[in-house]
Amino acid sequence: MSKKDVKKVVLAYSGGLDTSIILKWLQDEYKAEVITFTADLGQGEEVEPARVKAIACGIKPENVYILDIKEEFVKDYVFPMFRANAIYEGEYLLGTSIARPLIAKKLIDIANETGADAVSHGATGKGNDQVRFEIGALALRPDIKVIAPWREWDLNSRESLLEYARKNGIEISQKHVDENGNPKVSPYSMDANLLHISYEGLHLENPNNEPEDSMWLWTTAPEKAPDAPEYLTLTYKNGDPVAIDGVEMSPATLLAKLNELGNKHGIGRVDIVENRYVGMKARGCYETPGGTIMLKAHRAIESICLDREAAHLKDELMPRYAKLIYQGYWFSPERKMLQAAIDATQKNVEGTVKIKLYKGNVTVVGRDSKMSLYNDAYSTFEKDEVYNQKDAEGFIRLNALRFIIAGSNPNRK
Amino acid sequence: MSKKDVKKVVLAYSGGLDTSIILKWLQDEYKAEVITFTADLGQGEEVEPARVKAIACGIKPENVYILDIKEEFVKDYVFPMFRANAIYEGEYLLGTSIARPLIAKKLIDIANETGADAVSHGATGKGNDQVRFEIGALALRPDIKVIAPWREWDLNSRESLLEYARKNGIEISQKHVDENGNPKVSPYSMDANLLHISYEGLHLENPNNEPEDSMWLWTTAPEKAPDAPEYLTLTYKNGDPVAIDGVEMSPATLLAKLNELGNKHGIGRVDIVENRYVGMKARGCYETPGGTIMLKAHRAIESICLDREAAHLKDELMPRYAKLIYQGYWFSPERKMLQAAIDATQKNVEGTVKIKLYKGNVTVVGRDSKMSLYNDAYSTFEKDEVYNQKDAEGFIRLNALRFIIAGSNPNRK
Amino acid sequence: MSKKDVKKVVLAYSGGLDTSIILKWLQDEYKAEVITFTADLGQGEEVEPARVKAIACGIKPENVYILDIKEEFVKDYVFPMFRANAIYEGEYLLGTSIARPLIAKKLIDIANETGADAVSHGATGKGNDQVRFEIGALALRPDIKVIAPWREWDLNSRESLLEYARKNGIEISQKHVDENGNPKVSPYSMDANLLHISYEGLHLENPNNEPEDSMWLWTTAPEKAPDAPEYLTLTYKNGDPVAIDGVEMSPATLLAKLNELGNKHGIGRVDIVENRYVGMKARGCYETPGGTIMLKAHRAIESICLDREAAHLKDELMPRYAKLIYQGYWFSPERKMLQAAIDATQKNVEGTVKIKLYKGNVTVVGRDSKMSLYNDAYSTFEKDEVYNQKDAEGFIRLNALRFIIAGSNPNRK
Amino acid sequence: MSKKDVKKVVLAYSGGLDTSIILKWLQDEYKAEVITFTADLGQGEEVEPARVKAIACGIKPENVYILDIKEEFVKDYVFPMFRANAIYEGEYLLGTSIARPLIAKKLIDIANETGADAVSHGATGKGNDQVRFEIGALALRPDIKVIAPWREWDLNSRESLLEYARKNGIEISQKHVDENGNPKVSPYSMDANLLHISYEGLHLENPNNEPEDSMWLWTTAPEKAPDAPEYLTLTYKNGDPVAIDGVEMSPATLLAKLNELGNKHGIGRVDIVENRYVGMKARGCYETPGGTIMLKAHRAIESICLDREAAHLKDELMPRYAKLIYQGYWFSPERKMLQAAIDATQKNVEGTVKIKLYKGNVTVVGRDSKMSLYNDAYSTFEKDEVYNQKDAEGFIRLNALRFIIAGSNPNRK
Repeated sequence: MSKKDVKKVVLAYSGGLDTSIILKWLQDEYKAEVITFTADLGQGEEVEPARVKAIACGIKPENVYILDIKEEFVKDYVFPMFRANAIYEGEYLLGTSIARPLIAKKLIDIANETGADAVSHGATGKGNDQVRFEIGALALRPDIKVIAPWREWDLNSRESLLEYARKNGIEISQKHVDENGNPKVSPYSMDANLLHISYEGLHLENPNNEPEDSMWLWTTAPEKAPDAPEYLTLTYKNGDPVAIDGVEMSPATLLAKLNELGNKHGIGRVDIVENRYVGMKARGCYETPGGTIMLKAHRAIESICLDREAAHLKDELMPRYAKLIYQGYWFSPERKMLQAAIDATQKNVEGTVKIKLYKGNVTVVGRDSKMSLYNDAYSTFEKDEVYNQKDAEGFIRLNALRFIIAGSNPNRK
Repeated sequence: MSKKDVKKVVLAYSGGLDTSIILKWLQDEYKAEVITFTADLGQGEEVEPARVKAIACGIKPENVYILDIKEEFVKDYVFPMFRANAIYEGEYLLGTSIARPLIAKKLIDIANETGADAVSHGATGKGNDQVRFEIGALALRPDIKVIAPWREWDLNSRESLLEYARKNGIEISQKHVDENGNPKVSPYSMDANLLHISYEGLHLENPNNEPEDSMWLWTTAPEKAPDAPEYLTLTYKNGDPVAIDGVEMSPATLLAKLNELGNKHGIGRVDIVENRYVGMKARGCYETPGGTIMLKAHRAIESICLDREAAHLKDELMPRYAKLIYQGYWFSPERKMLQAAIDATQKNVEGTVKIKLYKGNVTVVGRDSKMSLYNDAYSTFEKDEVYNQKDAEGFIRLNALRFIIAGSNPNRK
Repeated sequence: MSKKDVKKVVLAYSGGLDTSIILKWLQDEYKAEVITFTADLGQGEEVEPARVKAIACGIKPENVYILDIKEEFVKDYVFPMFRANAIYEGEYLLGTSIARPLIAKKLIDIANETGADAVSHGATGKGNDQVRFEIGALALRPDIKVIAPWREWDLNSRESLLEYARKNGIEISQKHVDENGNPKVSPYSMDANLLHISYEGLHLENPNNEPEDSMWLWTTAPEKAPDAPEYLTLTYKNGDPVAIDGVEMSPATLLAKLNELGNKHGIGRVDIVENRYVGMKARGCYETPGGTIMLKAHRAIESICLDREAAHLKDELMPRYAKLIYQGYWFSPERKMLQAAIDATQKNVEGTVKIKLYKGNVTVVGRDSKMSLYNDAYSTFEKDEVYNQKDAEGFIRLNALRFIIAGSNPNRK
Repeated sequence: MSKKDVKKVVLAYSGGLDTSIILKWLQDEYKAEVITFTADLGQGEEVEPARVKAIACGIKPENVYILDIKEEFVKDYVFPMFRANAIYEGEYLLGTSIARPLIAKKLIDIANETGADAVSHGATGKGNDQVRFEIGALALRPDIKVIAPWREWDLNSRESLLEYARKNGIEISQKHVDENGNPKVSPYSMDANLLHISYEGLHLENPNNEPEDSMWLWTTAPEKAPDAPEYLTLTYKNGDPVAIDGVEMSPATLLAKLNELGNKHGIGRVDIVENRYVGMKARGCYETPGGTIMLKAHRAIESICLDREAAHLKDELMPRYAKLIYQGYWFSPERKMLQAAIDATQKNVEGTVKIKLYKGNVTVVGRDSKMSLYNDAYSTFEKDEVYNQKDAEGFIRLNALRFIIAGSNPNRK
């Protein structure tokens, strides 16, 4: 589809400077009707101001979509992912990655509803998010035109962006210019939703630099966290958390509450160099307070409810599952295959986990389940009604038989 | 081989009550010459007393083997395992598992040297260690007879053991009886070496009980650790740590030093329910102070030195590698295959990692390497000499092509 | 459960010499009521004679169970397995392995129905079948007592078995003794069902011996097969074959028809050395005529209907899936996980496959599907409306970026 | 690097029409000095005519590189790949894929030697080969400029190519035009080397069409192959074939001999729809006569020489290994990791395999090795000195223990 054929574009619109410039640019370059979509994913910022700004940019009121999708986000994206104990490269809880397919889905839903032929986003040409948005969108609607202004325009410096904003009457906030109106070194590049907040850029670009204390916005530093530990109990059902300290909550409410507790106790800071899908390494810092608690707790409830081999197979499949989410393949057949395998194990993952939070530490201190596979009659000393120690001899002999046979052939190297 | 054919047995002998009883029992039941092997693996207890005790039991002085194998342990077992970032079931650093094959190897070496036809150990019939010892031994010498007294005798209660000890003049220490000579509830079942100490039994048998503070012997509680963080720098070469704060050290010295630092700052406590190889679940608590630091640090140096796909393949193979070690397959062809794959990635894993220790937290705060694959010219905003953002379009289009084609067939479900 | 506590045993009874001896032995040794279960799995032998023989051995008529389970076998066991394209060790189509769990299930069903407390089978202590029967039985009913006479009695030679049979009036057929009543070298050890027939033993015990022509019972030798090829079309739906040459058939009927065609054209002979679960290698020969056709055809219909990454993930998981079936873990959580993943891919696996059979060769010569992902507009020369060749440049650049960055660091080895 | 900066290009030159046009086009468009590289990979065509043609196009004699790289190809590329038993998507033996990295390597070697700054190839923008050439080249020299004319020029039809050739005095052979000089429908798109020949296009573009008999060039049709089978013996050492019928041969000689035998007996035709790396499906036909024999034979020698778990791990890693080669990642760290794992298993893969060839069938009829792990004392009936059947009971009980425990909890679903 060529530029002039685009009639209507749905833009993922935050209301911030960059996407406001994109909004204007789409109107100018594509001469297209723009529909804005602003999602409340729990990023902690008001979304209603985006309406005012969009309308100020000439968007028709009925073309401004603002949706609270926190519950859908946690229930259908975050929780399924946590059933897999997903971590990317040993550290990253995929807070940004898991939100992108949902935004892509909403863009396509709105495009279908409004008869739009294109979608647009504000991700650059160097990162993972462009891939996640676009693969998500194309998987859901193969003929959609995707407009990625950062890969198309020539506004690739802070100066040129500000210049464009000024020329077009787009409001420039304090954080983008100093008192003289000159571009400030941009703040950290950040992304936030109910699961996490991320930081990239600036000082972090040298992976040998420790992050500055002032960077972290969502968690108390462990050093400043309370001196007394705090205990909580998480209740699980079908592999998902459903209650805190016995109080049932909706998925988003529960995650928000865990974030609050995690924040207070300095839980969930991560500082890594990660491998982007587009080929380079990047430094990223993340705060995932509630998610960090959930990961520990889910593993703990699984530790008593899950069969050994099911658990091990999950562990072996997990890195690939996490990679699929990181690289934008949420809607792919292969992610769905893995999800089917994972979900098939969760029906008995039910019970409670007691957790202690203290200055950055999440410690599991108890797990209980009526589905439990733990039975101390089998494991402990001096009780042998159910287990015959002599069975171990045959078990070992046959497991070692291949070594015995190999060792008996003197020719083998 | 039948009982009466056994002429000479090498016993893994700690000098404690249980293996002293086994020593006596082997002499009585098998009428065999016993050779004792006591290893200094860094368990933190003197090994020389074992010599006195063995001789007191009638062992010939030349049949008492006491070896300091700490360096071999760390260099040839612990370090290769850490190259893989091995963790069992998401939590356990395999401290006991990794020591067993080395003990098995030494038992066989001594058996070969002394012409012994059997080896013996004090592991019960319910645990993993019997498997690890015996598969290790059989893999190294297929015709060895393995004697596992716990699976053979009828001394399967504390009372009967003490009775046997008394009758045979075996010294019973304070910890086994109360002031009246009655058997005390046994202490935690423990195992220690330079990598870790483990606890099982008692209070822990209910997985919903928090461990008692007094149980932990090797680490300061995070609550009691210093209020000020401490920083250190680890230097890596070929994937192994070689220096702390620039001071080169032997493998065992380095690990001992990390243990000291970890201990001080409350690092490395783990409390889990794990899946034993023999089929049941068991509660275990572990302290792995130095190992916990090494795992974090190794991942950090890999994060800048390792190719993405090599790192991901390592992550996918890791759970299986860890399981092999857990289940006693160190000497197996499949563990060697995986080790070959892992080691093939480590020649560029070289550089320094800065680490902050604080009340249970190990935080990586910097990584640097002349082998680094991190290059901020590629990842950062507003610099585009080396990277062409437009490349991303083709990259995304072709990665999405299979979805575009699938989505274009209206028959597909 | 001790011997004397066993009141009622369900025996997997073929009506042959070995299981007739077991029947008698169970009556004598266990003083238990015996229930016989004989399955028609399509082995090609009459099952009714087993009724007569059982009654002749004193089994009450109501305790003789004879069931035709061919349709259940093919629909719920064979077809799900073929969805996975399962092959063990690159060659074996798992014909025996896949039947065992169903027999175990029926044994337990009958035990539950009749209040039996034990099941028994005629598999030896050296093979895989004992494991498959017993793990299957225990997975379905954990308190069942399993009696494996071959591991228990002392009748471990042909002579002693015949002696026992004679003493107890058990009919001995021609194939077991020569004209003088002396034991003959036993025929090949065989197992058959609708999916395959297997041969072990005798001449085959030297893996360097070619099987004798006379051994093969189910397929024409390729040399003697018709000189003209024969074509057929298989129709698939949801990943399962549902029709031959447009004629819909039940699962068992369809497989029987494929067997007939395969037999005629010399399809499906396999001769391998395989790794048994109990630790040794064994030589086995197999004829799987229909299965060999189904494997080829299923791959062919998948080749046009299945997404690339789903197909590749299936291929990567397949060896583990096949191993689980080979080793007796059909009812395990991990097999169900993998089945869930596999089945999640089959809803679009629908269409027709044209096949040519000729002297041992199964050749796919056409595939067609309304679900097809094949679209020659994308792949062929000189048509470029849908595909932009320039996209490939960005695709390659970004996929190569990690090598470009690595290659640019002169320090790297 | 921009067009005008390119001074010297090494072109992969076959001497055919397409690469002759490219040669001319590079001279015209890039004004660059062209160096031609023509490889004898065993494609069965003379390579010397390429010299004459190149010189006729104005290439300096010293800039014409013609190399016989058959031995390097088989020894360092084909054989390592066959150690892995590599097959892509269950059928394709990777004959084209495995040759591409070697050609890329030679292009870079010659570029380095001659001071060239670019390489060029004749692969289109729709296929896998462009990826294989370019990723290979960039992995070996990150700053190389790659020129892919098919993605750059506008000669994307047969007519325009012929027109260009005529205008530039490039010789047009019979197969490209009919008697009137009009472009003929191009012949199959083919690629050949010592391992295989491939066919794409024309009639094959409908995956429901059977290939025409006349298409196949390298193998006798099974129907026309000899009526008598032929036997041969392959000798293996370190996992590679070293002799046929006891006669030692160099790698390329051995493969050529196997091709001859396979050709005679109609071995190695494959007809599939495969998934290209660039996202679409494509129909391909292949003849791999010698390779098909080698795959069977290698599996057979492994079947007696390889440990079970090593063999299974190889099988699980194989699809990924094959995919890496298919997609052009031969020089990647991840392929080298897998190769290290595979090669670590081959030192005992030594011995002989007897093979029967008959009308399209490759049948293994014997295997023998002094490294053999097959020992009939373990597997056969009525010999029990080395194996204790009772061991199986403990083996089964402990393997089933997790099911017994799970089944004993009535709450579990």
